[in-house]
Amino acid sequence: MAKRPKLQDDFITLAHGNGGRYMRELIDHLFVHYLQNESLDTTVDAARLSIDLMSGEQELMVTTDGFTVEPLEFPGGNIGSLAVHGTINDLAVSGATPIYLTLNAFIEEGLDVAVLERILAAMAEACRESDVRVVAGDTKVVRRGQGGGIYLATTGIGLRPRALKLGLELLQAGDKILVSGSVGDHGTAVMLAREQFGLRGDLQSDATSVFPIAQSLLTIPGLRFMRDPTRGGIATVAHEMARACSSTVRLLESSIPVKGPVRAVCEMLGYDPYFLACEGRVVAVLAPESADAALSLLNDNGFRDAAIIGEIMSGPSRVVLETRLGGERILEELEDDPLPRIC
Amino acid sequence: MAKRPKLQDDFITLAHGNGGRYMRELIDHLFVHYLQNESLDTTVDAARLSIDLMSGEQELMVTTDGFTVEPLEFPGGNIGSLAVHGTINDLAVSGATPIYLTLNAFIEEGLDVAVLERILAAMAEACRESDVRVVAGDTKVVRRGQGGGIYLATTGIGLRPRALKLGLELLQAGDKILVSGSVGDHGTAVMLAREQFGLRGDLQSDATSVFPIAQSLLTIPGLRFMRDPTRGGIATVAHEMARACSSTVRLLESSIPVKGPVRAVCEMLGYDPYFLACEGRVVAVLAPESADAALSLLNDNGFRDAAIIGEIMSGPSRVVLETRLGGERILEELEDDPLPRIC
Repeated sequence: MAKRPKLQDDFITLAHGNGGRYMRELIDHLFVHYLQNESLDTTVDAARLSIDLMSGEQELMVTTDGFTVEPLEFPGGNIGSLAVHGTINDLAVSGATPIYLTLNAFIEEGLDVAVLERILAAMAEACRESDVRVVAGDTKVVRRGQGGGIYLATTGIGLRPRALKLGLELLQAGDKILVSGSVGDHGTAVMLAREQFGLRGDLQSDATSVFPIAQSLLTIPGLRFMRDPTRGGIATVAHEMARACSSTVRLLESSIPVKGPVRAVCEMLGYDPYFLACEGRVVAVLAPESADAALSLLNDNGFRDAAIIGEIMSGPSRVVLETRLGGERILEELEDDPLPRIC
Repeated sequence: MAKRPKLQDDFITLAHGNGGRYMRELIDHLFVHYLQNESLDTTVDAARLSIDLMSGEQELMVTTDGFTVEPLEFPGGNIGSLAVHGTINDLAVSGATPIYLTLNAFIEEGLDVAVLERILAAMAEACRESDVRVVAGDTKVVRRGQGGGIYLATTGIGLRPRALKLGLELLQAGDKILVSGSVGDHGTAVMLAREQFGLRGDLQSDATSVFPIAQSLLTIPGLRFMRDPTRGGIATVAHEMARACSSTVRLLESSIPVKGPVRAVCEMLGYDPYFLACEGRVVAVLAPESADAALSLLNDNGFRDAAIIGEIMSGPSRVVLETRLGGERILEELEDDPLPRIC
């Protein structure tokens, strides 16, 4: 096996789960180190399987995701709908149509059965809306104090046109970056639902299927890449893009849609909304001549907050935020994050 | 939605996870109630997907499993190898060849990175042995005190010959029941590794891939059904069979292979070894005229402890154990189980 840097820590910390640098190191230095094979690519949202289909025009795609949100229910959803939407979304931004799901539930002894029912009902509703089917499942019960109520793990299977060209490797200087709606709603809604900072509010999570958005964007020639900015927010997606094309990603503070309550919470707690999770947004990268058409299409389809929020520029691999006042600051890769169990 | 009996409990208990009656009710009355669709069948180990393949002779199979074993490492394996083997085995007993895995890891803050490395190394080794590839993964970190070190969820994807006829619906009175090796080794090894009853021992778990066994048995005409007896042991598989064909499953105590240490622990603690988990055995049902050939084949392939342990008989749907002394007792469906986190 290839020699690789050791993890800097001897014990797993919360930062290993936040979507940022430590998590990337955990995955690259441990998971990928041991499990690498020609089919494993941690920079994609869904993997292509080398199984030839009857329809030669389609290919089989798979993705998997774990969900640990606290509280289990929050304005705009619960861990059940979140799991279905999150898995659908990873397929959708890969250009695939989700068809099947598998479900694992790790349930903590003592969980209220009424809560479990609401979680399952929300899963069922989310599956119906998106026409996906749960085809296999497993449940485990762990002792009281060994789980957070319930954790879910879902795997999604879908089909994608073989001819589709989409991926980080297509990015180039000059490309425009679009977001389909306001950022940080999910992270903020979950934080408020915890009431842990003495804050309350009725902000809704943005958690939903982005399949309709992704399908719209796929009609635009010049679409290069899509991702749903979950853990680590749009700033983390921007870092992935900057790394992939060894260029500078420039984001415009004045163009990034941030709702009032999100901005207020961020100002109070000193957070950057660009690092907060969304669960129903798409970040898309488009050739410069296609960006306006993509934006118009989303606006016409009811995504009024969609916006072009930046571009890729020649320059060192980094993420720069042009502030409202015309200055600029570097958005560093996320390191510490006080918010575990956000998705 | 169909009207269905309510769960008897308002809160989830450990018995909802033990493989027995309460778990079946949890799954049927809640999970299936909400998530039912024409592709969901909880009586199978792996689901057939309705996606036509280029090779018209094969069909796509998927299975999923969660793993919560405590301790994370035990004689004969760890949670990593267990997860790979368990998922491979569900495909194998369905007659499929496993090809791809997806992996979810829920890691508890504070987990020793050295333990995580050993878990991943064991996964990698188990994947190599069985020629399967991890193609997608996700990691989440939960706060200290909200997890049991690490929980894993794996989904397996494989291919199965379309022409294969195998399933609970084929069972009929007169069929013989075969087990590929000694029962209860895994459950007992994990129990001993906990030292929770003041017991110690170096019994190895039987956890391994049963793919070679399953492939051997598939060459026997008259093979009707296979299952790997994990949670709830062979008695639970016997109950599934009795329910499926509304007949009596008769097991012969004197024929069921049980190792000395397993027997000793069971006698000390008052357990029935027939309810203890195996993680590397196959229970197979064969037409009466095929049973001896199947047994010889397994014996010749090195499975010296394989044995014909019973049969299906006309009679009420129940499981009867013919004791060594020639008497008989009913093996009731598992209800309480003092051993959570066994797999």
